[in-house]
Amino acid sequence: MKPGDSTTGPRALIHALYEAPLSGEAIEARSFETIAREAPPHSFTPPQWTVVQRMIHTTADFSLMNDVKFSADAVSAACDALMAGRPLYVDSNMIRAGLSLARLRAVCPDYNAQSILCHVADEDVAREAKGGGLPRSLFAVRKAKTALNGGIAVFGNAPVGLLELNRLILEEQIRPALVVAMPVGFVHVVESKHEAMSLGVPFIALAGRRGGSPLAVSVIHALCAIAGSRQ
Amino acid sequence: MKPGDSTTGPRALIHALYEAPLSGEAIEARSFETIAREAPPHSFTPPQWTVVQRMIHTTADFSLMNDVKFSADAVSAACDALMAGRPLYVDSNMIRAGLSLARLRAVCPDYNAQSILCHVADEDVAREAKGGGLPRSLFAVRKAKTALNGGIAVFGNAPVGLLELNRLILEEQIRPALVVAMPVGFVHVVESKHEAMSLGVPFIALAGRRGGSPLAVSVIHALCAIAGSRQ
Repeated sequence: MKPGDSTTGPRALIHALYEAPLSGEAIEARSFETIAREAPPHSFTPPQWTVVQRMIHTTADFSLMNDVKFSADAVSAACDALMAGRPLYVDSNMIRAGLSLARLRAVCPDYNAQSILCHVADEDVAREAKGGGLPRSLFAVRKAKTALNGGIAVFGNAPVGLLELNRLILEEQIRPALVVAMPVGFVHVVESKHEAMSLGVPFIALAGRRGGSPLAVSVIHALCAIAGSRQ
Repeated sequence: MKPGDSTTGPRALIHALYEAPLSGEAIEARSFETIAREAPPHSFTPPQWTVVQRMIHTTADFSLMNDVKFSADAVSAACDALMAGRPLYVDSNMIRAGLSLARLRAVCPDYNAQSILCHVADEDVAREAKGGGLPRSLFAVRKAKTALNGGIAVFGNAPVGLLELNRLILEEQIRPALVVAMPVGFVHVVESKHEAMSLGVPFIALAGRRGGSPLAVSVIHALCAIAGSRQ
């Protein structure tokens, strides 16, 4: 029996799609049309809006528009870093799984799987966390200190990791090319972002309690698109 | 130089945490205290509230409470399936990366990496999608048909995959133990969930456009906690 030959029961909705196929790309284009139509007025620059649009696409939540904050240099600094193939430090394996190596490679062919660092599940990090009575995210950031200097720091989960990066910037002269500050939650989150935005390093942040891995991924993918269009 | 020995510039916020360490577990407990304190009144059953609380913890978004829908049999059906070690079908590699095998194994020691199926990045699926002019998520679901019968279906991304599962339920007598219906976006999303909730199979859904991989993961982790407490 082919799909759709059934004569009993209600007709499954997907038959409309079988009859008029839409590819994943076509669906994405329609989604962005809907976002453009429904978005309220805003004052983002065109490249900033490219980033915010993708964040809305990822969450279907227009209310994020009120909370996305860019340093003036964020997009250009991010494009420079991506075109130079700088490493990405990410604070969860979900971000690593979500990031598209193909999109990174389209900007800089030097990118490979080793360009994306995530230490939160490393055994030595777990051991240090247990010994210190502190979250693993803190020791994961410390382990990546060298790469974070000039690298792209991507936080979608752990505020304590971002707090530790803030300290490295303040006290140990580490200077990331960009900080994506989007940890989520109820403890340390708001202040970790507020501090990150005060340090004079390029940032894209989601102020407030919200954040998450898909948002962090969407920001990097939008920046890849912008960097690709500038080449 | 030890962290905190710097005498120049502003003091990094994380020193407060160095001085009074809080583990990841302690931070999580504080987060749940905040959620309990701030959540508006609701009519979820205690196990349903365990699920919804974790969804709020994952997103810091109380407005989800209005949109989480459970079939009456969802939690008990999910617990039975988890205790029996039923496979999980997930619609993104981010969900696979986010799911904790340790939490699944605590409920049923039979769980292993092969228990979590994700076909969206498979080469044969990509080929079929290209050939059919349809999204990969559709063919990924078709490929998992056998496991989906009696398995736990977890959607946090792709509405077309959920639409295809709905068809398999309607037309091919596939009966998942539970459908977690949380795809996100602007095209096919609302109707895919609406249809999923009409089929008589156990479901936990987020009505409307919102959803996402972290939400889908949080639901499974909450169900693991509930199933573990029933053993």
